[in-house]
Amino acid sequence: MVEPANTVGLPVNPTPLLKDELDIVIPTIRNLDFLEMWRPFLQPYHLIIVQDGDPSKKIHVPEGYDYELYNRNDINRILGPKASCISFKDSACRCFGYMVSKKKYIFTIDDDCFVAKDPSGKAVNALEQHIKNLLCPSSPFFFNTLYDPYREGADFVRGYPFSLREGVSTAVSHGLWLNIPDYDAPTQLVKPKERNTRYVDAVMTIPKGTLFPMCGMNLAFDRDLIGPAMYFGLMGDGQPIGRYDDMWAGWCIKVICDHLSLGVKTGLPYIYHSKASNPFVNLKKEYKGIFWQEEIIPFFQNAKLSKEAVTVQQCYIELSKMVKEKLSSLDPYFDKLADAMVTWIEAWDELNPPAANGKA
Amino acid sequence: MVEPANTVGLPVNPTPLLKDELDIVIPTIRNLDFLEMWRPFLQPYHLIIVQDGDPSKKIHVPEGYDYELYNRNDINRILGPKASCISFKDSACRCFGYMVSKKKYIFTIDDDCFVAKDPSGKAVNALEQHIKNLLCPSSPFFFNTLYDPYREGADFVRGYPFSLREGVSTAVSHGLWLNIPDYDAPTQLVKPKERNTRYVDAVMTIPKGTLFPMCGMNLAFDRDLIGPAMYFGLMGDGQPIGRYDDMWAGWCIKVICDHLSLGVKTGLPYIYHSKASNPFVNLKKEYKGIFWQEEIIPFFQNAKLSKEAVTVQQCYIELSKMVKEKLSSLDPYFDKLADAMVTWIEAWDELNPPAANGKA
Repeated sequence: MVEPANTVGLPVNPTPLLKDELDIVIPTIRNLDFLEMWRPFLQPYHLIIVQDGDPSKKIHVPEGYDYELYNRNDINRILGPKASCISFKDSACRCFGYMVSKKKYIFTIDDDCFVAKDPSGKAVNALEQHIKNLLCPSSPFFFNTLYDPYREGADFVRGYPFSLREGVSTAVSHGLWLNIPDYDAPTQLVKPKERNTRYVDAVMTIPKGTLFPMCGMNLAFDRDLIGPAMYFGLMGDGQPIGRYDDMWAGWCIKVICDHLSLGVKTGLPYIYHSKASNPFVNLKKEYKGIFWQEEIIPFFQNAKLSKEAVTVQQCYIELSKMVKEKLSSLDPYFDKLADAMVTWIEAWDELNPPAANGKA
Repeated sequence: MVEPANTVGLPVNPTPLLKDELDIVIPTIRNLDFLEMWRPFLQPYHLIIVQDGDPSKKIHVPEGYDYELYNRNDINRILGPKASCISFKDSACRCFGYMVSKKKYIFTIDDDCFVAKDPSGKAVNALEQHIKNLLCPSSPFFFNTLYDPYREGADFVRGYPFSLREGVSTAVSHGLWLNIPDYDAPTQLVKPKERNTRYVDAVMTIPKGTLFPMCGMNLAFDRDLIGPAMYFGLMGDGQPIGRYDDMWAGWCIKVICDHLSLGVKTGLPYIYHSKASNPFVNLKKEYKGIFWQEEIIPFFQNAKLSKEAVTVQQCYIELSKMVKEKLSSLDPYFDKLADAMVTWIEAWDELNPPAANGKA
């Protein structure tokens, strides 16, 4: 049995890393009481809250947190017709927060994620670990058997080419979950009582050419390096599918990171995932994804971007064309999704004009 | 500070897994006192000891162990002129043991490897974990973020394609090392005091298309599936290189496992590696490998076997031709090595006639 950490009485971190360069994005439909527990680690940072569902509902944010909050009316007002690319009634709406942020780094977390304990019983400062992951390089071109070679007490093992030891910039840090594992509905139904109690003390680079199932529950990334590809797709209200928002983003960012020689790390930090979502509801949301992914994943495994695609935006637009061309036969939904990908990039560039942040 | 486990007084395992289907191969130049410590876990198994160096020296094996021992004279007698493919004065000679074994599984371990402790202080039965790794499938085509999905308490996470959940047969299980990490000479020189104290409680499949540095210190494999590719090359006496025997085998087996859709796992079990080899001696052995590997690894990354290669032997012969064609320009040594690869396969087939074990 695992339990969340008790953080009552822990002082707020007086020297938070990257305090002015990172936003925390939280999609929610309810009061953010879970932030009480995170106070020692997260209070110094700015929050971007994306309120899903009824915009007239008032979301309570614990005192002392600095935040901006966007509901659906705000999204519609800010993006106008382009708001169509932002999902409604689905946590996919969180990507609006990535777009309006002006910071270099994003940490996104679900409101049912509590603070985990490491095996010694210490509360895990998840954000600090994500920042460490993002600030040290990745090694996607060759596997290091002792995991992250940049971690203290570790290194590259015998036989690791020296020319590859400098590594590449890390664009994404994917954290894991104790207690309720991130299972699909069929697995939830079959193993309703399974809990993840195994704390694996490792961070690793996902090798180039390998796709992975990216979960949006506990995720950090470098907005400058990969932000425009972190689109969580069209899910929820009016769409034939849900719970594939983060998967979609994960496939896209991995193909683009591989193309641009950027790193994706997974492993630490853990959060404590408190509550299993309803498997019957999940099944309804997921079932199309469950068979679609059998074709989507080979599509992404074979997706080759052109040499001309040198920015994330260019890569993403190329990918949207391939989606339209290759996946529309699967379902008309992908035609719509491909269009939304383009709209997303247009909206991103509108809110993040190239000149303003010095990027071409 | 990590210490080896104390196994004195532990009873010998009364129900050893695969007792009659597994041989333990140990290359050595000294008395095998280290086996005392391994008695609870290894005594039930048959040992194949490959004595390196002076054949007149008498190697002492602790009482109670069942073993066969081969020295250089035996190797020469058994293989005749083909003995040229077996290295001398280098632990690469161990692969002779793989060849003379008649069992399905091999576990190979160095004589400076002691029993490790897990974080709870329990002695790690390394062989038992290797067998578990080999008997459950691998998942090389897509990354599972909760590591080995076949382990108790774990599964495939949301977004993992169902069509891939059956996995593929596991051919190789690569274990790790606490205490002295397997570093190359330059890293040993720079970090003489670094010890590996991090016990990472994970087993994972190395994804398809990704190469890794395979260490021969704590390794198990399925001889029927991959045996003929487990050739440790020409090292040591009379050769321009050493300490790349296991690396060579690792590159070859990974390319072939990828081609034949077989799995390679790494992670648990740990052994306690007791003693660092001399970094100056190592540097002398390694230095050519250190720059050669900068070309060899891209060679293996790009090596594509033909559809006609459907047995390990056929794959290995194809690989030997590519080595001759592509790497001989690097050094005449590779020409010799390519020939030795062919000799190895001839010797393997001679000692393991296809008819006898029912394989084509």
